Amino acid sequence: MKINENYSKLQDSYLFSTIAKKVGEYTAANPNNQVIRLGIGDVTRPLPPSVVGAMQKAVGEMGTAETFRGYGEEQGYDFLRNAVRDYYTAKSVILDGNEIFISDGAKSDLGNILDIFSQENTVLIPNPVYPVYLDTNIMRGSKVVYIHGNRDNNFLPMPEDGVAADIIYLCSPNNPTGAVYNRDQLKKWVDYALEQNAVILFDSAYETFIRDESLPTSIYQIEGARHCAIEFCSLSKTAGFTGTRCGYTVVPQELTHGGVSLNKLWLRRQTTKFNGVPYIVQRGAEAVFTPQGMRECRENIDYYMANAAVIAGTLDQLGIWYVGGENAPYIWLQCPGGLGSWEFFDFLLENAGVVGTPGAGFGTNGEGFFRLTAFGNRENIVTAMEKIKKIL
Amino acid sequence: MKINENYSKLQDSYLFSTIAKKVGEYTAANPNNQVIRLGIGDVTRPLPPSVVGAMQKAVGEMGTAETFRGYGEEQGYDFLRNAVRDYYTAKSVILDGNEIFISDGAKSDLGNILDIFSQENTVLIPNPVYPVYLDTNIMRGSKVVYIHGNRDNNFLPMPEDGVAADIIYLCSPNNPTGAVYNRDQLKKWVDYALEQNAVILFDSAYETFIRDESLPTSIYQIEGARHCAIEFCSLSKTAGFTGTRCGYTVVPQELTHGGVSLNKLWLRRQTTKFNGVPYIVQRGAEAVFTPQGMRECRENIDYYMANAAVIAGTLDQLGIWYVGGENAPYIWLQCPGGLGSWEFFDFLLENAGVVGTPGAGFGTNGEGFFRLTAFGNRENIVTAMEKIKKIL
Repeated sequence: MKINENYSKLQDSYLFSTIAKKVGEYTAANPNNQVIRLGIGDVTRPLPPSVVGAMQKAVGEMGTAETFRGYGEEQGYDFLRNAVRDYYTAKSVILDGNEIFISDGAKSDLGNILDIFSQENTVLIPNPVYPVYLDTNIMRGSKVVYIHGNRDNNFLPMPEDGVAADIIYLCSPNNPTGAVYNRDQLKKWVDYALEQNAVILFDSAYETFIRDESLPTSIYQIEGARHCAIEFCSLSKTAGFTGTRCGYTVVPQELTHGGVSLNKLWLRRQTTKFNGVPYIVQRGAEAVFTPQGMRECRENIDYYMANAAVIAGTLDQLGIWYVGGENAPYIWLQCPGGLGSWEFFDFLLENAGVVGTPGAGFGTNGEGFFRLTAFGNRENIVTAMEKIKKIL
Repeated sequence: MKINENYSKLQDSYLFSTIAKKVGEYTAANPNNQVIRLGIGDVTRPLPPSVVGAMQKAVGEMGTAETFRGYGEEQGYDFLRNAVRDYYTAKSVILDGNEIFISDGAKSDLGNILDIFSQENTVLIPNPVYPVYLDTNIMRGSKVVYIHGNRDNNFLPMPEDGVAADIIYLCSPNNPTGAVYNRDQLKKWVDYALEQNAVILFDSAYETFIRDESLPTSIYQIEGARHCAIEFCSLSKTAGFTGTRCGYTVVPQELTHGGVSLNKLWLRRQTTKFNGVPYIVQRGAEAVFTPQGMRECRENIDYYMANAAVIAGTLDQLGIWYVGGENAPYIWLQCPGGLGSWEFFDFLLENAGVVGTPGAGFGTNGEGFFRLTAFGNRENIVTAMEKIKKIL
């Protein structure tokens, strides 16, 4: 019996456990000091009332014989797929319901989508990056090539001549940098993918944070993308579903390779290895897409983005270089004074009781950079920024 | 870009779509005839009141800032893992919380567990079988060898001399046959797995249907199993969670290969490719394991098993050979009159308006056999059995 030996090639996932350890040590040594966490990638505002009401109703239905629901279709109930389809229509993207797969979140589908591809593909991954894209491919033993984000390109890497790829990960708005590709840039990526006969795995988890109306909110607003891209969306940050788990993955019918439909492969994968998202959660998700639900989500998103503006404003005053914060809840700053990521982490924690995320935790190009997130409490963020101003 | 070519080796999953087509044709031709479905593998009784109450409370918590929960640990909240641990203790199996992984159901984990193994393993699969075990291994390109269930061994195949295996699927109580291994038989399987240095993937989804106290209700009640078995459990049939999605997978710390801990591999897989079960669902699952919750679930299980007794009693009267129905909600009968599976399906549907599942849909050894399920409504089952008695 052989285990999967690729797992031994994974780096120990030390980033958040190291952070937790350092914060634990600081708190123990300074029990009276306030610790303000600006590193969390989790929402803090509760579920919107529309969602709560829809789920309460659905829980009641599940307790009554006449309205009880057992197994649903693995790809999700029509009521939700239609709501997602209509949401796309409002963005000028026309989808068929059978191109939409309800997921328990982008993380699961971004990992599991690899099942339908051979592991003998070259995978293009950004650096810095959300670690899941890298780890899932190391687990499969696939060859990984990096595209490099840096200050020169505002952490928006573009296709490089001479670099071949079969599977391309793009995340825009980006975690961890908050950088957002514009239409021209995404068109170049789509053209590159078509020329390479590659598939773009487009992580669109933060599209609802975009305020600039010139920026694309779906890869399918780019011509040609239906032939080369799979889009992964999530209600985690849009609607506060990090602990409730719901998203949707789009696989257009035009996406074929060697005459084989990727939509058909994904349907087969999901009907074989998944049993769908809970009915209760799907009713909650449906409520997100109602006018009232969207108003309530928009309130929370505006709250987070106002937090981002507080953070960005402070960095502007301090003359610190950064990207993000305008169309994303993440801000990616260059550590002042030439400090390394972890040096700056320690400095902030020890001198201001503020916790962020060292950029080095997201890849080698993150060294010397630092992520702050806008999901926290307004008062704490204002306090944190004032403390940071004092010590810098 | 290469797709996963193994998918082209999958058989089209025609079983339930063919059944749906035939039933649709019958209903259209006979609009006034009652159709009674005894083929469904889905529960019909609603969620127990304890579960409904717990989920209502949890939904309310998610709508309030002070009690809102974001991301939970991927392996599940302690409150639920501890409840599962205590449930095992009552069965004389002592587990550590970190050996328990909360899942969104056995189907997901039975498929995804293969990630931690090399595909260069020989996989032993029963015939007849729940199709997912076979399809997930075809998708990976692993070599499959069958162990044969038949009337002679009461559809309880045992290890065969000269057959080597690395991964062994066992499901007991069994879907589709309802057959249950006793302690001695499971001990032989555990000894075989230890001798082969193989891993048993033990599907325990129906253990709560066991009434015979001499029968094992966990593989870990068998000596040596901690060193060679992973157990997959589900609340789908136990508590009616087919549309709510929750289960648990046990990976003992003793389970190592070449010095590598499978528990550690599974934890890495899940923390990388999964984001946990919804908080609301975990609170519902926690309620299942309370004394009141277990009483309510037991009522539903007793109801289904009384249905099974009605079916079994009729087959006894008709002198039809069958297994199952005593410690499982499935009955696996030999088609009377030497009819083939689909012939008997058509005969039952056309002459009695009763729908079952042709055994041939579960593998070649299912030809000439037929599955009836006990999940339906009592009155319908009684009516169906009377109609069957008339026509046979």
